[in-house]
Amino acid sequence: MSDILTPAAIIDLDRLERNCERMLARARKLGVSLRPHMKTTKSADVARIATGNGHGPITVSTLNEVAYFGEAGFTDITYAVGISAAKVPALADLQRRFGLTINILADTVAAVEAAAQAAAAADPRFPIFIEIDCGGGRGGVAWDSADLLAVAAAIDSSTHLSLAGVLTHAGHSYGAHDVAEIERIAEDERFAAVSAAGRLRDAGFTVPAVSVGSTPTATFARSLEGVTEMRPGVYTFFDLDQVMIGVCAIEDIAVSVLTTVIGQNPRSHRALIDAGGLALSKDLSASNLDPRFGYGLVCPSDGSEPLAGARVAEVHQEHGFIAIAGGGEARFAIGAQLRVLPNHACMTAAPYDRYYVVRGQDDRVVAVWDKASGWLPSPSGTLTH
Amino acid sequence: MSDILTPAAIIDLDRLERNCERMLARARKLGVSLRPHMKTTKSADVARIATGNGHGPITVSTLNEVAYFGEAGFTDITYAVGISAAKVPALADLQRRFGLTINILADTVAAVEAAAQAAAAADPRFPIFIEIDCGGGRGGVAWDSADLLAVAAAIDSSTHLSLAGVLTHAGHSYGAHDVAEIERIAEDERFAAVSAAGRLRDAGFTVPAVSVGSTPTATFARSLEGVTEMRPGVYTFFDLDQVMIGVCAIEDIAVSVLTTVIGQNPRSHRALIDAGGLALSKDLSASNLDPRFGYGLVCPSDGSEPLAGARVAEVHQEHGFIAIAGGGEARFAIGAQLRVLPNHACMTAAPYDRYYVVRGQDDRVVAVWDKASGWLPSPSGTLTH
Repeated sequence: MSDILTPAAIIDLDRLERNCERMLARARKLGVSLRPHMKTTKSADVARIATGNGHGPITVSTLNEVAYFGEAGFTDITYAVGISAAKVPALADLQRRFGLTINILADTVAAVEAAAQAAAAADPRFPIFIEIDCGGGRGGVAWDSADLLAVAAAIDSSTHLSLAGVLTHAGHSYGAHDVAEIERIAEDERFAAVSAAGRLRDAGFTVPAVSVGSTPTATFARSLEGVTEMRPGVYTFFDLDQVMIGVCAIEDIAVSVLTTVIGQNPRSHRALIDAGGLALSKDLSASNLDPRFGYGLVCPSDGSEPLAGARVAEVHQEHGFIAIAGGGEARFAIGAQLRVLPNHACMTAAPYDRYYVVRGQDDRVVAVWDKASGWLPSPSGTLTH
Repeated sequence: MSDILTPAAIIDLDRLERNCERMLARARKLGVSLRPHMKTTKSADVARIATGNGHGPITVSTLNEVAYFGEAGFTDITYAVGISAAKVPALADLQRRFGLTINILADTVAAVEAAAQAAAAADPRFPIFIEIDCGGGRGGVAWDSADLLAVAAAIDSSTHLSLAGVLTHAGHSYGAHDVAEIERIAEDERFAAVSAAGRLRDAGFTVPAVSVGSTPTATFARSLEGVTEMRPGVYTFFDLDQVMIGVCAIEDIAVSVLTTVIGQNPRSHRALIDAGGLALSKDLSASNLDPRFGYGLVCPSDGSEPLAGARVAEVHQEHGFIAIAGGGEARFAIGAQLRVLPNHACMTAAPYDRYYVVRGQDDRVVAVWDKASGWLPSPSGTLTH
């Protein structure tokens, strides 16, 4: 561990495997398949573990993730950001190149028609989900709206698109205050998706998949009757935000940022570290609920429990300040390594290009895993301008 | 422009050149050399323009930037984050490989001694700056502290380190409220650095460089007497935060994020775009001063002035919401491209792997520039584990 140059993203493999096994068991118990969202880890090694040591179905959030996971042997990929027609030729290229099934999604007739036109020019065939709004108010049509059937009809009228099913994401579960609220949101999520599928089937459409999912709702849903798959993501790593809403314990967090103490400010009693706003992200989700979390909690380099009252209190681009609650002195040896638990793992892990993977309590690095970052396949690929 | 897959970082080359020319002229007028901080743009093409169409001295913030700019032919590089000994072997390797002068910095005897020990093992010689705190309270010793001379003595006692000079950064100028306050901070910055150099010289040390700099203080300093170089960075791009504190106009902002409209939420009257918290960053600096800025102001795709009242009001990982001030409806065609001006250009530009460079009002892409991102040289390089 002491050879790792900082800042660096560390995976605790024991915790990661436990998190993945737990969600696989959860999917089996609920009678749905698991299509984990890889936007959190962006790692093929994690995807293999999360899909049960295989190359099972996954969900991604960028074109670059489609290319990265396609190259790594994952062939059934849902690109879960509303499609824009401009991206269809690039996706068609990736679909052909790696022999992929790329499921896309849309929630308007305009987006479907534009995608159909772009797909016709490129001549692939895309399964396409209709996105349903289950209360989050982000993307999606209401299950009981006229738009639902209009979007399905637009898909049906294209020979280059096929209806993959309905898909919804209860992103608002991240803002829940307790388990009871998550259970209610999970039932809203299930109900919206299943009801949308029912309306489409009643209208004569074939609806292969009914897809729901967020880590909180996947963890606490009482039933997923009528659902075929779920797409949680952050459970692979977990984070302080998930701790705050009761979805996991601090001991479940499988990712942290290794950093080095590079200074001490005698006047402010704070220690300076080489992990700042880029290395930790400026996401304040958990801190919005409890300011004691700051930009992350500080642990010893062996990843054991957080040091009492220690948080990253302030960040600049490549600098962070550790402060101790109550104004105590944050005093660490210059050169000492520490690990910071993130507020929001997806945001924190994104910019890294690799993970250092440790197992057990002896800080032994057992692997270095590559990962995707950014949005577009590498300029050396076929998508270059 | 319409061929660019989104989200993407766009450089307006006319504005970038104008910003760079203006700062070069400013340095000439102040009688100091310009060592621009490349942490903002992380681009070799920008570095060439910013150093007067050459390969002049630059400042960087990560090891990966040292490697990237070293490979691009920049040979005089200041790595302006307090050194930790663990990074010295990697820097020594880069120094040898590319024939670089890498100036490092420290503000404690402990850091100097550890760096000297690591440098002795690797057998390079590093010029090292003593970092001075000019009031920001981040890193650095006070110019009038006993520590200043102790750190200089520690450097002097190593045959593998040589005193490069003193260096300070008035990062707190970003929080200034008006030009008068920036002028005061600039004078504090100059005074702290020049006074530290004076004390060292009085004690018999040779102090080659007296280095100051931030974009606000470089723009408004009335005098840099006694200073030899300045290291501003964000002026290359500028951003809404710099607009807010009066350092530039909106028309000077040379970077923006191109995004595509992927949805309309009829209930919230908001438009959904494919640029979220990663593509725009979650930095709220300008919004902390004025919430009307949100996560960025929204412009037409040709980069002309912001649409009245339109801001990115909310972000998820890869999704953003555009809202109109006063609750008006943000209605855009599905598939339309827009450009978002960032709160804090350094944070927003960092994760991208390339810039699409446009010139003039006709949206013509004249170049695609590579850039550095992340912290460590590519795993295929010599620093791989």
